[in-house]
Amino acid sequence: MTQQNTLDIIKRGADELLLEHELKQKLAQNRPLRIKAGFDPTAPDLHLGHTVLLNKMRQLQDLGHHALFLIGDFTGMIGDPTGKNATRPPLTREQVLANAQSYKEQVFKVLDPAKTEVVFNSTWMDKFSAVDLIRLAATHTVAQMLERDDFSKRYKNNQPIAIHEFIYPLVQGYDSVALKADIELGGTDQKFNLLMGRELQKHHGQPQQCVLTMPLLEGLDGINKMSKSLGNYVGITDTPTEMFGKLMSVSDDLMWRYFELLSFRSLAQITNFKEEVANGRNPRDIKVLLAQEIVARFHAQKAAEDALAEFEARFQKGVLPDDMSEITVACVDGSIGIAQLLKQANLVASTSEALRMIEQGGVKLDGEKVSDKALQLKAGEVVVAQVGKRKFGRVTLA
Amino acid sequence: MTQQNTLDIIKRGADELLLEHELKQKLAQNRPLRIKAGFDPTAPDLHLGHTVLLNKMRQLQDLGHHALFLIGDFTGMIGDPTGKNATRPPLTREQVLANAQSYKEQVFKVLDPAKTEVVFNSTWMDKFSAVDLIRLAATHTVAQMLERDDFSKRYKNNQPIAIHEFIYPLVQGYDSVALKADIELGGTDQKFNLLMGRELQKHHGQPQQCVLTMPLLEGLDGINKMSKSLGNYVGITDTPTEMFGKLMSVSDDLMWRYFELLSFRSLAQITNFKEEVANGRNPRDIKVLLAQEIVARFHAQKAAEDALAEFEARFQKGVLPDDMSEITVACVDGSIGIAQLLKQANLVASTSEALRMIEQGGVKLDGEKVSDKALQLKAGEVVVAQVGKRKFGRVTLA
Repeated sequence: MTQQNTLDIIKRGADELLLEHELKQKLAQNRPLRIKAGFDPTAPDLHLGHTVLLNKMRQLQDLGHHALFLIGDFTGMIGDPTGKNATRPPLTREQVLANAQSYKEQVFKVLDPAKTEVVFNSTWMDKFSAVDLIRLAATHTVAQMLERDDFSKRYKNNQPIAIHEFIYPLVQGYDSVALKADIELGGTDQKFNLLMGRELQKHHGQPQQCVLTMPLLEGLDGINKMSKSLGNYVGITDTPTEMFGKLMSVSDDLMWRYFELLSFRSLAQITNFKEEVANGRNPRDIKVLLAQEIVARFHAQKAAEDALAEFEARFQKGVLPDDMSEITVACVDGSIGIAQLLKQANLVASTSEALRMIEQGGVKLDGEKVSDKALQLKAGEVVVAQVGKRKFGRVTLA
Repeated sequence: MTQQNTLDIIKRGADELLLEHELKQKLAQNRPLRIKAGFDPTAPDLHLGHTVLLNKMRQLQDLGHHALFLIGDFTGMIGDPTGKNATRPPLTREQVLANAQSYKEQVFKVLDPAKTEVVFNSTWMDKFSAVDLIRLAATHTVAQMLERDDFSKRYKNNQPIAIHEFIYPLVQGYDSVALKADIELGGTDQKFNLLMGRELQKHHGQPQQCVLTMPLLEGLDGINKMSKSLGNYVGITDTPTEMFGKLMSVSDDLMWRYFELLSFRSLAQITNFKEEVANGRNPRDIKVLLAQEIVARFHAQKAAEDALAEFEARFQKGVLPDDMSEITVACVDGSIGIAQLLKQANLVASTSEALRMIEQGGVKLDGEKVSDKALQLKAGEVVVAQVGKRKFGRVTLA
C-alpha cells in the first residue's frame, strides 16, 4: 500500500489531522504507531456515535498500529471535589475496574484485542506528588486556559470555574507524555485537550503526537448529534431487530454519511454503491448492506441474516409501497401511545384525529386493524403504520 | 489587664484587625493563641521595616501567646518552575536550613525564643499528593483568584500568569489549617492570602483565624516605604553608630510613627513624650531615647550608650546650630563623592558650585576644611557638612 493510500484511510471521515507532514514522517518509520484515545471511567453504554472513534482506531490497527485505550480513572476517582456536581461522585477502584470490563466487552466488537492495550492514567498519576502537579501547572498560563471555548464562555458569563478544572486538561495532556503517544484521537470538541498533549510532549522533550479529530455522528434524524437523551441513537447493545430497523429508517443522504463513518467497507466500494444508485438501483438495497454489516459487527452474521429475513417478511412482501417513508419516533420512558405515535409520524394532524380514525377502523399496524385506542408500543419496535388508504410510514420506535 | 487593654496593645499600629469580635472570643478562652506569620525561605537581610511584624509577634508573646515562625520552604524548594524567573532558582534543603539559621539569629533579637516555634511548610506539603492538591485547588474559583490586585492587573495587561501561581496562595492558606493558627500577621499587601487561610480553615471545619495586617514602614525619608534598594533603611545588622545616626536623622513627625511601630515603650509613655514636646522639650532628646532603644535591641545596652556618647561628642558640643537640618543621602554602590553629596543635601545648587566652593576653602566636614575635590564618603557615615558660613546639614549616608 502506498503512503498516500494509508493517509487516505486515516483521514477518511476525519474532521482534522494535525500535522499531516508529521504523520507522514511517523508512518515512514515503519513501526507500529502508538494510538491514544481517552475515555471516561463512568459506566459505558455505547451507541454508534461513540464507535466513530473506535472505528478509526480499528482502521489504524488494521494498518498495523497499536491502540492505547486509555481510561481516565485518576480524575474519575477524585470525582468533583467542589461537591457541586452530584452526578459526578468519586468512583471506587472496584467501580472503575467493573466499568473497564464493561468497556472491553463493548469495544472489542470494534477493536482488535490483540492490538489493544487498556491503560489507566491512575497508573502514573497516583505517583504524582504535589510538586509534580505544580510543575505541570506551571507549563501553562491562565490566559491560555481561558482561551478554551467552554472556559471562556463560563468566565464571561460569571459562571464559576474551580481552579482544579484548569488542571484536568493538563493531566489529560500529560497522559500523552506518559504513553509516548504518536497519535491521539478525539472528538472535534476535544481539540484543545489533544493539542495540550502535543505541547506537554514538547515540554518533556518528546516527539509531538499528531492529532486526529473525528466529527460527532448525526443521529437517526440526520440533524442532531446522536445521543441517548435525544432518542435518535442506535445502541451497540440494541437487539439485531432494533438495530436493523433503526438503520433502515435513516434517510438516503444520512446513509452515505454512515457508510463513511461506520462501515468498514473501502471507499472504493462505497463509491461503486453511489454509482449504482445514480444508475437507478434502489438505495434501500444498499441500506440493507449497511444495516447487515453493523448488526453482524455487534451480534453475529447469523443475527444479521435473521434480521434481514424478518425485515423482508414484514415489509417487503404484500402491497406496501416501496417508497414508503421511514420515520423514527422517540418514546418517552420506553413506550408511546398509538395516537401520539401517529401524530409524531405525521400520519395525522392531531391526536384527536388519530383517535377518530381508530374509531372509524382506518388505522392499521403491520396490516392489522387497530381497535384499542389506548394501545402502547414499546421502544425498539419497528412497525408499518397505515392511516386511511394512502398514508403509510415505516416507524422505528427509539 | 483588662481585655480592652489587651486589644489596644494588639491593635497598636495595626492597619486592620479581622474580625475583632472573633479575637475577643479567642482571648476569652484564656489559652496561648497560635500566632502565625510566614516568611520566604530566601536569605534574610532584615531591616527595621521587617521588624514591624516581628514586634507585633513579640507583643503577642509578651501577652502570653505562642509564635509560629513559618518558613515557606515548600514553594521555595520548587523555585519558579516556569524557568522565567532566574532570580528564583529552586533552593536546596541545605540552603533553606542555612537561611533558617540566619533568620533565627536575626529575629531572636525581637522574638522571645522560649515562645517561638520555627516551622517549615514542607513538613506537611511534602506529604501532599497530587490528589490532595487538586482537592485544595477545587476550593476556589478562577474568578476569585483574579480578584487579587496583582493577578487582576497582570491579566488585564496581558501579562502571563502561570497556573501554578494560583496554587501558591492556596498552599499559604492551607498552612493555617496545618498549624491550626488563631491569628495570622502579615503586611497590608498580604491581606488576600491571609483571608485565604480563614476560608480554608472554615472548609476544613476549623475555627477561623483572625487576620492582623501591619502597615509598611516608611523609610528614613518619611515618604517611601523602607527598602534596601531605596537606601532609606536601617538594617538590623547595621553598626550601632550607623543605626544611631540614621535614627537621629528622621523628622520629628516620623519619630512618632517609629515610636508607635518600632518601640516597645507603652502607648502611655509615648503620649507623655508628646506632651513634653508640646510643652517645649527638644524633640531631639526624645529621638535619642528611640535611637538608644533600637540600638540596644539589636546590639547591647553598652553599645547604645557608646553610640550616644559618640554622637554627642561629635554634634552636641561646639558652635553648631541646634536646629540644623537632618538629611539622609543615598549612596550608589556604597559610596558617594563630596560634590554629589553636597548637591543631594541641598547645600549647593549643582556639583560645579560644590567644586568651586571646595576650591575657595568654603566646605567643611565635621568642622574640618575639605580640600580634596575627589573625596569619597562611605555609606553608614554620619557627617556634619557646612558650606560657607550659614549652610549646615547633618548628613547620614545610607
